[in-house]
Amino acid sequence: MLIIHYQLSIEMKLQILGCYAATPRTITNPTSQVLDIKNHLFLIDCGEGTQVQLRKHKIKFSRINHIFISHLHGDHFYGLIGLISTFMLLNRENDLHVYGPKGIKEIILLQLRASGSFTGYNLYFHELESKESEVVFEDETVIVKTIPLNHRVYTNGFLFQEKLGKRHLNIEAVAKYKIEKVYFDKIKSGGNVTLDSGEVITNELLSFPPDAPMSYAFCSDTLYDESIVPIIKDVDVLYHESTFLDSEMQYTEKTKHATAKEAAQIAKLANVKNLILGHYSTRYGSIEPFKTEAQTIFYNVLLADDGKEFEF
Amino acid sequence: MLIIHYQLSIEMKLQILGCYAATPRTITNPTSQVLDIKNHLFLIDCGEGTQVQLRKHKIKFSRINHIFISHLHGDHFYGLIGLISTFMLLNRENDLHVYGPKGIKEIILLQLRASGSFTGYNLYFHELESKESEVVFEDETVIVKTIPLNHRVYTNGFLFQEKLGKRHLNIEAVAKYKIEKVYFDKIKSGGNVTLDSGEVITNELLSFPPDAPMSYAFCSDTLYDESIVPIIKDVDVLYHESTFLDSEMQYTEKTKHATAKEAAQIAKLANVKNLILGHYSTRYGSIEPFKTEAQTIFYNVLLADDGKEFEF
Repeated sequence: MLIIHYQLSIEMKLQILGCYAATPRTITNPTSQVLDIKNHLFLIDCGEGTQVQLRKHKIKFSRINHIFISHLHGDHFYGLIGLISTFMLLNRENDLHVYGPKGIKEIILLQLRASGSFTGYNLYFHELESKESEVVFEDETVIVKTIPLNHRVYTNGFLFQEKLGKRHLNIEAVAKYKIEKVYFDKIKSGGNVTLDSGEVITNELLSFPPDAPMSYAFCSDTLYDESIVPIIKDVDVLYHESTFLDSEMQYTEKTKHATAKEAAQIAKLANVKNLILGHYSTRYGSIEPFKTEAQTIFYNVLLADDGKEFEF
Repeated sequence: MLIIHYQLSIEMKLQILGCYAATPRTITNPTSQVLDIKNHLFLIDCGEGTQVQLRKHKIKFSRINHIFISHLHGDHFYGLIGLISTFMLLNRENDLHVYGPKGIKEIILLQLRASGSFTGYNLYFHELESKESEVVFEDETVIVKTIPLNHRVYTNGFLFQEKLGKRHLNIEAVAKYKIEKVYFDKIKSGGNVTLDSGEVITNELLSFPPDAPMSYAFCSDTLYDESIVPIIKDVDVLYHESTFLDSEMQYTEKTKHATAKEAAQIAKLANVKNLILGHYSTRYGSIEPFKTEAQTIFYNVLLADDGKEFEF
């Protein structure tokens, strides 16, 4: 009996652990999110309390091997030292990679030294200081690039891109031509098949195109800055900070933050498919107006909120 | 009309924000507590998430002016940088004093510098490195001394002692002798009063003794160590760590922690009035056995738990 394994395209999932600006409160958490893409789990930012949010949402600590830190403001990384320590106490063995601004290594190591601790796992720091977009992670299926942002301190967003996957077998065609299993990998990789008769069956007859690769751009914190548009062009999902509503737009320049409308304008210019808003100032009683204001410029707006999960 | 102000003795209150060892979880918090004594509010230790616990228990941030850190393990101070930052974001103006092991200043300042931040309030560090008990805070009403503890890193407990207050007016006697209000402060300070007639009324007739001063000793983290007994002798309340039950006593030496029975033994030797247990390992499903085991040695045992408030 021929068993055909048809690989279902793996969704991209985004779990928001926290998406509010400045100070943690009883009802809101500072920035942290988990991106699940092509079976990779990437932790993006790590505000105070992130390890508790991870527990709350039942995300296995052992699946977190890569942590990306946008910048060294407290609401984006004060939870990192605690998470690294907890990994240590739980006798983690997997390597852990931390990508973040230059200086992050000294901060973490100083605290580990002060506590007389050392990690039983390998802890690698990939310190960033370039002002140009650069590749910081790459393997067979995913590539991660920085998105230089415009904030009060050195800050990067991160662009996560699936690589183009393999083609899918056309099960009916494969059965029709009685092609043996041994050829399946070749077909998925785009190759033709020569039958015993000498007849060549072209790949197009035997397979369907691969899934379109998904892409996710995380951009927080930043002033409105069109220079990021070429980097995030056509992404499936853009998370763009929107600290303020229009009524507080006078604060954007000084604080180097953006409004919901500005986030929408970036989404429009970059022709992204979906815009997720977040990093709301805690001054607002409701986050709905962020959507209303953004939709005056760009329609596909989603609102991040603590605990919310998005699937694409 | 004569209005007699009778000063009610102010209670000592202890609010437990967190009292579990090692890692913060969804259901437990690492060490932090607030001692309210003689109208002073002292924050003792500051594990990750302490600022959220303070909000949850509606403790005004502006009342916290003195923070005591026992040692530089994460579950006792990883929430400090976030609290200091939040004070900054809330435009605090009051001075803030931090008492803790040498090294704490560098850790905090390194992180403030990395975030391009500076506090708008004065931030004073009182770094400790003595292995002897020493006075670290003193004013008219309260004195705070260190209690050198025996842990894996340099650690201090803290002894908070009210000073002997003023005597209380004997309202009936004062009325009987028709003593004018102008003499009240003198009487409260222990002075006699000479009437116009020349008759001397001794202080004992006009006043009652002051309230017995309260005292609180915080001892966490530590191995069982009788050398602290003379320092904490006769205190009203001893908080002593009890990370383990007897069944895990084999871990105490390596981890430099104590069992519930060992905490009780210290309480007994020091002749304290009340023992509060805390810093429980998160391996236990219930904390009741800590009380049961401790009471085999010392009866007045109370169990700390997150959110619990004690009044003495």
